[in-house]
Amino acid sequence: MSNFILMKIAILGTGMVGVSIGTKLIELGHQVKMGSRTADNPKAREWADAYGPYASQGTFADAAAFAEIVFNCTHGQSSLDALNLAGKENLEGKTLVDVAIPLDFSKGMPPSLTICNTDSLGETIQRAFPDAKVVKTLNTLNCQLMVNPKLLKSDSSVFMSGNDANAKEEVSNLLKDFGWNEIIDLGDITTARGTEQLLPIWVRLMGALGTPMFNFKIAR
Amino acid sequence: MSNFILMKIAILGTGMVGVSIGTKLIELGHQVKMGSRTADNPKAREWADAYGPYASQGTFADAAAFAEIVFNCTHGQSSLDALNLAGKENLEGKTLVDVAIPLDFSKGMPPSLTICNTDSLGETIQRAFPDAKVVKTLNTLNCQLMVNPKLLKSDSSVFMSGNDANAKEEVSNLLKDFGWNEIIDLGDITTARGTEQLLPIWVRLMGALGTPMFNFKIAR
Repeated sequence: MSNFILMKIAILGTGMVGVSIGTKLIELGHQVKMGSRTADNPKAREWADAYGPYASQGTFADAAAFAEIVFNCTHGQSSLDALNLAGKENLEGKTLVDVAIPLDFSKGMPPSLTICNTDSLGETIQRAFPDAKVVKTLNTLNCQLMVNPKLLKSDSSVFMSGNDANAKEEVSNLLKDFGWNEIIDLGDITTARGTEQLLPIWVRLMGALGTPMFNFKIAR
Repeated sequence: MSNFILMKIAILGTGMVGVSIGTKLIELGHQVKMGSRTADNPKAREWADAYGPYASQGTFADAAAFAEIVFNCTHGQSSLDALNLAGKENLEGKTLVDVAIPLDFSKGMPPSLTICNTDSLGETIQRAFPDAKVVKTLNTLNCQLMVNPKLLKSDSSVFMSGNDANAKEEVSNLLKDFGWNEIIDLGDITTARGTEQLLPIWVRLMGALGTPMFNFKIAR
């Protein structure tokens, strides 16, 4: 906890990823507002009631305006919509942690990607919100492991991509508080192409291993 | 060496990957013919002279006709050409180990992929040569490590994709002889989409770590 600074944090999205990260942040002592499309989303309300008084909820814009750091935990297909609802003015100058995966279910199972190869969702978001400091991370593993990497028997790696060094340091400190020892800074936001394209092997490994409880470790 | 059966093996391609794998197979006692576009390629000749008498060289067709197992170690962009030169009749019924990466340098550095997301080079080759038994493997790491994974301090993983169970077992036995302990069978050849899309993070990890001497380990 050496890097521990209490912060106001927004979680955009009420799915399993948002709930996992939001709950972990509450446990770490932060104030967390979960944002969704509507002012009183039942899932966000249930979460805020369960984890209050420092857990609260509101619209995407309410959450982003409240926060110093914003986590994008929406589905990749609707991330730009959600961030537009959050509002450029509420994201300006803030660290925007992008955990989303640009999943494409329209071409059958397992899912493919809506963006890949010569672009990424992380870059798309950075281009759409040039005054936010986008850091792509945690998008390569199961949400339980995101906030509790020690659930695996052996150490593993988490990756980080972003253009702003201070934002990456801030996120890195949060990741350490989540329990991460090996945080690999891949470079600028274009390196999100690398981590987003781990999804295709991730879904097939889940099939082959019969569990989502695994992660990539970079062996040297 | 418990699975050791001496075989006649073709290496298509005279680059670093072909030389690494061909040399390792010679060291293991196999007969290896390196194939290229011409009957007397200087690099193939040099290799055969250095590693003979069980190392030989010839055209793609000579090598494929000679072999029981064929390794595609050509550049991904020219793999189909090379395999067409090798000849459908020379690949029929044989295990075709596809190590190639569909690199695209036309869109700048680091390279992107010519095929990805909803298709893969492995599948493309299997469709073009339906009577060959394509097994995609070893395409996720540096050629030195392909044949000597113990160069890394810690254990790591190698992946395998293919439609034919016997071909995968044959390849698995060769991989064990190369020194691999953790061989993960991802499933049919469509799972090559997963391993081929590791390239984008691999090139960026090489940049971030400053070395190609690393590999993915699946931590559980």
